[in-house]
Amino acid sequence: MQEIKVELTQNPKQKPADESKLGFGKIFTDHMYIMEYNPEKGWHNPRVEPYHAISLEPSAMVFHYGQEMFEGMKAYKTEDGRILLFRPDKNIERANNSNRRLCIPEIPAEDFLNGLKKLVEVDQDWIPTQPGTSLYIRPFVIATDPFLGVRPSDTYLFMIILSPSGAYYESGLDPVKIWIEDDYVRAVRGGIGEAKTGGNYVASLKAQVKAHDEGYSQVLWLDGVERKYIEEVGAMNIFFKINGKVVTPVLNGSILPGVTRASCIDLCRHWGLEVEERRISVDELVAAAKDGSLEECWGSGTAAVISPVGHLRFEDSVMQIGGGGIGPVSQKLYDTVTGIQTGKLEDTLGWTVRVK
Amino acid sequence: MQEIKVELTQNPKQKPADESKLGFGKIFTDHMYIMEYNPEKGWHNPRVEPYHAISLEPSAMVFHYGQEMFEGMKAYKTEDGRILLFRPDKNIERANNSNRRLCIPEIPAEDFLNGLKKLVEVDQDWIPTQPGTSLYIRPFVIATDPFLGVRPSDTYLFMIILSPSGAYYESGLDPVKIWIEDDYVRAVRGGIGEAKTGGNYVASLKAQVKAHDEGYSQVLWLDGVERKYIEEVGAMNIFFKINGKVVTPVLNGSILPGVTRASCIDLCRHWGLEVEERRISVDELVAAAKDGSLEECWGSGTAAVISPVGHLRFEDSVMQIGGGGIGPVSQKLYDTVTGIQTGKLEDTLGWTVRVK
Repeated sequence: MQEIKVELTQNPKQKPADESKLGFGKIFTDHMYIMEYNPEKGWHNPRVEPYHAISLEPSAMVFHYGQEMFEGMKAYKTEDGRILLFRPDKNIERANNSNRRLCIPEIPAEDFLNGLKKLVEVDQDWIPTQPGTSLYIRPFVIATDPFLGVRPSDTYLFMIILSPSGAYYESGLDPVKIWIEDDYVRAVRGGIGEAKTGGNYVASLKAQVKAHDEGYSQVLWLDGVERKYIEEVGAMNIFFKINGKVVTPVLNGSILPGVTRASCIDLCRHWGLEVEERRISVDELVAAAKDGSLEECWGSGTAAVISPVGHLRFEDSVMQIGGGGIGPVSQKLYDTVTGIQTGKLEDTLGWTVRVK
Repeated sequence: MQEIKVELTQNPKQKPADESKLGFGKIFTDHMYIMEYNPEKGWHNPRVEPYHAISLEPSAMVFHYGQEMFEGMKAYKTEDGRILLFRPDKNIERANNSNRRLCIPEIPAEDFLNGLKKLVEVDQDWIPTQPGTSLYIRPFVIATDPFLGVRPSDTYLFMIILSPSGAYYESGLDPVKIWIEDDYVRAVRGGIGEAKTGGNYVASLKAQVKAHDEGYSQVLWLDGVERKYIEEVGAMNIFFKINGKVVTPVLNGSILPGVTRASCIDLCRHWGLEVEERRISVDELVAAAKDGSLEECWGSGTAAVISPVGHLRFEDSVMQIGGGGIGPVSQKLYDTVTGIQTGKLEDTLGWTVRVK
C-alpha cells in the first residue's frame, strides 16, 4: 500500500449552514484525493490536496473518446461519532470491473480504500447529519494522453471528490413516476452497459428530457435487442413485488450491478421473502398491473438508496402501484439500509466499514 | 455571425522539421479556437487564443457523464498557396445532429465555419504539404457544469484544435487487416451510434486491443441486435465491391454517417458504378470471399481518407481480398478524393471551401 501525502487547505470554505438545502452533488468539500498512472510507474503519487480545478490539454483523450469510469458511495456520521462507509469493497470491485471493460488499468483495492478513508477522515467535518443527508463520495478515473488517435490512453488520473448532499430526488422518499422507454436505448449486451462510465449516461439524456417533459422523473430502460425486457433506471436498479414475490431483472451484461441492488436482494431473502432474478417483460408488468398482482415497485441506488415508484407508464398504459403510496417492503428496505448506513441499526451483516 | 477576438501567441512553438515523421494527432499548433455556452447568453465569446491547457472543476459533467461531441476534418494547402477545407458544411451539419442526440445546444453553422476558417488562417504556416500529410482539425464540445446529478449540462465549451498529421495508419495506403468482431458491440439502434461522441469509442477499445493482439489493425463491427449485419469500422465506414457492384451498409441509426462515405458513394455513381446501400450479412461476405465475387474492400474516413482492406477475419474464416493488394476502385477513390482535397484535381463537385 502506498503512503498518501496530505496537504491541508489554508483557505477552508464555509460549510453549508442549512443541511435541509444541500441538494445533491452541488457543494464540494475542502479537499480531494488524486493519484496518477503512467506505464512506467503504474498508479503512483497518491495524495490529498486542497480541492482545486484540474488543468488538462484540450487533446486529453477523455474529452474525445470517453475513456472515463466513476463510482458513487456515501459516508455517514453516527450519533456516537463514528464515520461509516457502506460496503466499499463492492464499489471497488465494481470499479475494477468497469476499468477492465474500458481498458483502464486496475486500481489496487487497498490504495483505493486507503485513499477513500483518508480523504473522508480529512473532510469529516463536512459530513452532514440531518435525516436523509450524507457525504456523497465520487471516485473517478479519466484518460489524459494528449493524443487524437483511437486507442487506450497510457496515462490517467484517479480522483475522489466529496459532496455533502441531501436526497437525490427533491421529493425525498415520496414515490416517483417512471417512464418506460421504447424508442431510445441505453445499452446493449456486448456493449458497456454494465460498466459505470459516461457513455451510458449521455445515451440516457434524450429520453430523460422527454420523460421530464411528460412529468416523469426517471426513465426505465428496455433491453436493446428485443426492446421487451426491463433493464434498469439509469441511476437505479428496479424491483417489483408481484404476487408476493420480489422480482428484479437478472444481470445480463447491459445492467449495472448495483451495490444497493445486491443489498436489497440479501435483505429480502433474510426476511424470508422469495426473490427472483430473472427476465421480466414489459408485457408481464402491464398485465400484473392490470390484474392487481403488481403490489410494489421501487428503485435502488447509492444516490437515492430506495426510491418507491408510484406510477409507471408504458406507451398508453399508466400503471398506478399500491395506490401511488410507499409500499411496506420499500419502506422496510429504506429504513433498514439507511439504519445500517447511519449506525442506527446494528450491522449484523458486516456491511459497514469504519473510517476511523 | 459573432465577431471573433484574436489573441496571437507571443511564444510560437517550433514547427516540425520533418513532415515524414508527423504521426497522427500528436502535435498541436500555436492557437486554438474557443466559444462558451450558457443558457443566458447562448453560444458566446468566440475567440482564437494561444494554445493552452484548460482548467475544469473535477466535478465538470464531461468527466462523469460523457456529454461530449467531436468532429474530424482536414485542411490542405494547394501548390498555388490556396488553403482548402473539404465539405465543412457536412461536418457542421453532422456535429449538430450529434449535439441534438446528446442534448448539447446546437452551434450556429456560420459561427462554426467562421471559427474554423479563422483558426486555420491564423495557423496556416502549420499546414504540412508533403504527400499524405494534412492539417487535421478537431472541433469538440464538452459539458462543464460542476454538478454530479444526471441531466444535460447548462454550460459548455466548444473548442477547435489543429494537428499537423501524416497518415492515420502508419502503413499509409498499404492494405490493412481487419477483424470482424462478434463478441463485443459498439452501438445499437436507439443508442448513440450515429452521434460522434466518446461513448462509442471507449466501447470499441476492448475489441480493438484484442484485434491488435491478433495482428489486425481495426475492428469491423456487427449490429448489436442480430449480431449478423456489417456496420462500420469505428474510425471508418466500410465498402465492398461484390460482383461488380459497390455495396456499403445502409445508415440504420447505429452507424456514423461519414462525410468521406457520402463522397465515395457520389464518386462511384458519377463513374457509372452501381452502388447499393443496404444490409450486408457477414455470411454473405464470407460466401462472396469464398466464391471469388468479393473483389475489393476499403474503409473511408476523414483521418485515413481511403484505406484498402486486404484481409478480413471472421471467427475461423480468413478472407484475402484482391490478392491482398490495393484494388482499382480503392486506388481511384483515394487519388480522386485526395486530389480534390489538395487542389491537384479540379473540384467539379464544389466540395472544397477556401479559407482565404
